[in-house]
Amino acid sequence: MFGLAIHGGAGTLPRADMSPERESEYRAGLAAALAAGFSVLDGGGSSVEAVTRAVAALEDDALFNAGRGAVFTLDGRNELDASIMDGATLAAGAVCGLTRIRNPIELARAVMERSEFVFLSGAGAEEFAASRGFEFVDGDYFHTAARWRQLERIRGGDGGVSPLTISHVGTVGAVALDSSGRLAAATSTGGMTGKRFGRIGDSPIIGAGTYADNRSCAVSATGSGEYFIRLGVAREICNLVRFKGMTIQQAADQVIHHELEDLHGDGGVIALTPDGQSAFSFNTPGMFRARISEGGTMEVGIYSDEK
Amino acid sequence: MFGLAIHGGAGTLPRADMSPERESEYRAGLAAALAAGFSVLDGGGSSVEAVTRAVAALEDDALFNAGRGAVFTLDGRNELDASIMDGATLAAGAVCGLTRIRNPIELARAVMERSEFVFLSGAGAEEFAASRGFEFVDGDYFHTAARWRQLERIRGGDGGVSPLTISHVGTVGAVALDSSGRLAAATSTGGMTGKRFGRIGDSPIIGAGTYADNRSCAVSATGSGEYFIRLGVAREICNLVRFKGMTIQQAADQVIHHELEDLHGDGGVIALTPDGQSAFSFNTPGMFRARISEGGTMEVGIYSDEK
Repeated sequence: MFGLAIHGGAGTLPRADMSPERESEYRAGLAAALAAGFSVLDGGGSSVEAVTRAVAALEDDALFNAGRGAVFTLDGRNELDASIMDGATLAAGAVCGLTRIRNPIELARAVMERSEFVFLSGAGAEEFAASRGFEFVDGDYFHTAARWRQLERIRGGDGGVSPLTISHVGTVGAVALDSSGRLAAATSTGGMTGKRFGRIGDSPIIGAGTYADNRSCAVSATGSGEYFIRLGVAREICNLVRFKGMTIQQAADQVIHHELEDLHGDGGVIALTPDGQSAFSFNTPGMFRARISEGGTMEVGIYSDEK
Repeated sequence: MFGLAIHGGAGTLPRADMSPERESEYRAGLAAALAAGFSVLDGGGSSVEAVTRAVAALEDDALFNAGRGAVFTLDGRNELDASIMDGATLAAGAVCGLTRIRNPIELARAVMERSEFVFLSGAGAEEFAASRGFEFVDGDYFHTAARWRQLERIRGGDGGVSPLTISHVGTVGAVALDSSGRLAAATSTGGMTGKRFGRIGDSPIIGAGTYADNRSCAVSATGSGEYFIRLGVAREICNLVRFKGMTIQQAADQVIHHELEDLHGDGGVIALTPDGQSAFSFNTPGMFRARISEGGTMEVGIYSDEK
């Protein structure tokens, strides 16, 4: 048995703003990323490799807010964060403030597997990348016209559009269970449009945006990161499973629909247990998501009223 | 009722290397910081203010690895991290990679109280500090000859000295309960001697080095930060209290003496509950620590065989 679920961010575009063509592109991007991760698992590969490949595929897809297509900081740059965790060993790697690494999730994985550290930041993280032979890209690589227009709307103080609608959409993540029973989780993001002051969100925070522990579950989160850090969302879900005996769906719903809502935070999670149970939970109008269900069927969703 | 506990790092100097004069200085530094926090609580002040004042006192004391007296990075700089959390509201603030802020804990608190963010990094965090009118100091302010010698021993590959002995000692933290029943926790550090690549440890990670939640407890941690991040030590202790009904001492010991030791990590924690129970737990030969016990008596300790 193995399993895989991915997300491409919570807080969808309103249906009215989503053309059929754009919606098809999102669904195709999710399906392609799911297939990339699934082919690893289907070939007997590890959950760590599966989440890396699924997240890298979403980073490469300019529709999502990670890697190419990341949102802009207030001063017009792309600063990328990512993290990964191996549920079998509790090994973890995280990076933040990257500006020149094509696939931040691959650098997070190198931190986990090839360094004595867990969390590297900014220019120092890129110095580590250079020491590991990573290829660097120009900042232009990440630039997309759509994200630039979003920055200009934020800079112009567009109060008619919710921050989640125009900025948080598109953080990406994956959770996987491989045929050896090992869980893994990974998350990657450009953060929030118009961020400043070297802001770090929940995506690279082990325990907030990402957690995996074979004793409970693997979780990747997306949403208003400050609330996710304060609640330690990913870890909280794992602990509700481990210490309270909740099902994965109960635990995810408890954190997203009660604890997060009590603080007026928005977002969602994907989660997966060692026995292959998966859960989606979000309190936004939608979450870009996909999973391979137990029968091997692929399921892709955007809105909350889809199965 | 109110309560206060502080630490100045786990992993003490061997007793043989600790002169009576040096030991007295450490004990006096701990007592002064405890008094600084206690006077806030005794005057009816908040737990957030009490932990801020206690930690700032330790940052100002060159014996401890936070603020002045911080350890050096491999390239000979001081990069400071800190975080703070309010258990009544789950508000939190954190900063990392600071090089010019005298009291990092005060900047973490400003992030918590005066920004829309939780976690700010590096030059961006200092830009925020400037916008809030913080005073900047020269990098020389943090420099001490003792820490420079430790860097030179690390650079020279001194394999006869454990990293904990010569580098981790001195992260500082505080947990407090005020007369309104509000918990708070704060942690500040220079990190580990010889760190590189923009390494971030557990001290500024909400859920790892610092956590406070009035439903369970307040925790500040110190030790080999990578392990503390992977386990989410501070949050884990709170969850064992909240979900498993453990006492604060049982929960702290479970995480430090079982979960942390299973991963071969070293360090310790201080913790405090809403009903005024405090706990110290560490698996190193000692932890610099102090608390006001329930009867109002001050207790200062370094080694594990002290009460």
